[in-house]
Amino acid sequence: MPNWLLPENIADVLPSEARKIEELRRAMLDRFRAYGYELVMPPLLEYTDSLFTGTGHDLDLRTFKLVDQMSGRTMGLRADITPQVARIDAHLLNRTGVTRLCYAGSVLLTRPRGLLTTREPLQIGAEIFGHASIEADLEIQELLLFCLRQSGLKQVRLDLCHAGVLEALLESVPKAEALESALFGVLAAKDVPQLEAITASLPSPVRDALRALPHLYGDVGILDEARRRLPAHPKLHAALDDLAFLAGQGGDATVTVDLADLRGYQYHSGVMFSAYVDGVPNAIALGGRYDKVGQAFGRVRPATGFSMDLREVAGVSPVEARSNAILAPWSQSPGLREAIATLRQAGEVVIQALPGHETDLEEFACDRALIERDGAWQVVDR
Amino acid sequence: MPNWLLPENIADVLPSEARKIEELRRAMLDRFRAYGYELVMPPLLEYTDSLFTGTGHDLDLRTFKLVDQMSGRTMGLRADITPQVARIDAHLLNRTGVTRLCYAGSVLLTRPRGLLTTREPLQIGAEIFGHASIEADLEIQELLLFCLRQSGLKQVRLDLCHAGVLEALLESVPKAEALESALFGVLAAKDVPQLEAITASLPSPVRDALRALPHLYGDVGILDEARRRLPAHPKLHAALDDLAFLAGQGGDATVTVDLADLRGYQYHSGVMFSAYVDGVPNAIALGGRYDKVGQAFGRVRPATGFSMDLREVAGVSPVEARSNAILAPWSQSPGLREAIATLRQAGEVVIQALPGHETDLEEFACDRALIERDGAWQVVDR
Repeated sequence: MPNWLLPENIADVLPSEARKIEELRRAMLDRFRAYGYELVMPPLLEYTDSLFTGTGHDLDLRTFKLVDQMSGRTMGLRADITPQVARIDAHLLNRTGVTRLCYAGSVLLTRPRGLLTTREPLQIGAEIFGHASIEADLEIQELLLFCLRQSGLKQVRLDLCHAGVLEALLESVPKAEALESALFGVLAAKDVPQLEAITASLPSPVRDALRALPHLYGDVGILDEARRRLPAHPKLHAALDDLAFLAGQGGDATVTVDLADLRGYQYHSGVMFSAYVDGVPNAIALGGRYDKVGQAFGRVRPATGFSMDLREVAGVSPVEARSNAILAPWSQSPGLREAIATLRQAGEVVIQALPGHETDLEEFACDRALIERDGAWQVVDR
Repeated sequence: MPNWLLPENIADVLPSEARKIEELRRAMLDRFRAYGYELVMPPLLEYTDSLFTGTGHDLDLRTFKLVDQMSGRTMGLRADITPQVARIDAHLLNRTGVTRLCYAGSVLLTRPRGLLTTREPLQIGAEIFGHASIEADLEIQELLLFCLRQSGLKQVRLDLCHAGVLEALLESVPKAEALESALFGVLAAKDVPQLEAITASLPSPVRDALRALPHLYGDVGILDEARRRLPAHPKLHAALDDLAFLAGQGGDATVTVDLADLRGYQYHSGVMFSAYVDGVPNAIALGGRYDKVGQAFGRVRPATGFSMDLREVAGVSPVEARSNAILAPWSQSPGLREAIATLRQAGEVVIQALPGHETDLEEFACDRALIERDGAWQVVDR
């Protein structure tokens, strides 16, 4: 095997793609900044004890482990940045008011999520801590949709669900926790026969409501049907109101609601967002409220946010990042050096052809040249 | 031990520092781009076989190892990006002309280089492949100095040396390779008694020249002394000519020459740069020519480049990244939403105070507020 082959689902990003990722990264971080999100950079490595605090078993399996030569303790390579940012909010910043944080960094996965997806996503995201109400969720939804629109992605579908629906339904059920994990599975798979078996012994209003969930998906109209078919529990109706409010603010995205879509339920605690675009089978951006995670760090802080893989976004974004450049000769002549410095200062890419060599580039198209004519340096078309 | 403590020499980067790093990162990448350097993003993980190709034993010891669950093979977390970029030039781009590449990414080290330095440097750098002459080295030196100047670092000292000096001196010595590694050590330490012992059995012109090296350091004038004290070997004099040429192009940096400073000798093959600034004990930027590395990938390509740790640069950079912001109330009023959108479009940071909460920020200073007065939204000083 040649010694330059890379591991499976690990790849170099070459110039034109790298430039595209860099431009999307800057545009998104600039947008977060315009909303007052503060940038943080958590480390690639942490002790597994802190890395898995407040997260599920799934993250553990996806995380590469290492032994720290300096302490003998086990460290993990982060597979998700969100819990790290929650840790920063809870213990480092330790503020009482609202904190808005954003980040962009690589994560590593022991196994890819799909056959053709990378094991090194470039995760970018934004989080609001310290605010428990729908206004924070709305700001997160706005940012999520803006990022996708700014990346040139059309026909975005935003799928909404709410952890409060299941929470409210199970409130009156004794030993509901034992039932929960089985319920997630059958609801996510919309496995109706299995759902009927699991719910057979429950009292009829709860049973009927749980059995109705797999059918409660579609456009916003489904929320009215949910109000009719589900019990008049105040928490449940508050959840439906939240969904109706957010669904009305989707802009040009197609908003759908799926009350059985509870994949992130153990992590999430309120509204959940999944955004889909053509060409990507799974959700391209995920988000929602996760008030429980801060609690695990010993400090109860409401939290809501979203994240996406910039590499995946760049892969389907039609934004063109290739740029034009000016080819200049190599010489120590002060006039040439000054002309080049002035052009670069003005934002032009000026590439000096090193003596004896031509340039052959992927990222830049040298459509113009800097030449000496009548004693002055001039830019001409090539 | 509380579960949010991080491993030694691993740290979160909090908002004001993260913003500074981000701004320096963008400014440097923009400068590389203005020179026509193409951005690449090599992976964090590679098989150790490819990661260590063309590099020394030192890199192996500094590299975290992992077993790949998908192949059973050993992978390493990169401790340096330069060899990865050389691999990309040699095998992925596979061009015959000049290729300029740049990168910015995290690397991980099993042990820190110093007591207080990070194990997760953010390495940024630029490399020219396919050009064997001094013009390419000059462009690299220019960029290196520009990056430090742009980061607000004053009183930069640029230390130059050249692998060709030792190479030329050892050319006539039989079994020189056995001597080389011992020589690096004593020359780097300027350990004169040990140097005398090691060189005792060598013929007198080589012996005297090697013994002179530890004394040949200082300002550019030392090059004239080197011409007098070292043998008239054409390769050696070419090396001294190169150093004299580069020393004359240092701009406002203080240029020094040290002919015994050969720390990177096994990796480098021509001129070597080390830049120093006040407040950082070790070199803040390192660079030079390393024509041998591409050869190890089975394709001989001359190469020259430099890199630095953006976190270290940000740590001593006086550049102020904190920025002013406008505090706005939360409301769904179309007038307010429009006023906020317009301000953000114009580059302002506008932070909406979520209902019932004040904001308390590290990165942004809310020096102004958006308020409604006489039916219109206006920005006023706070």
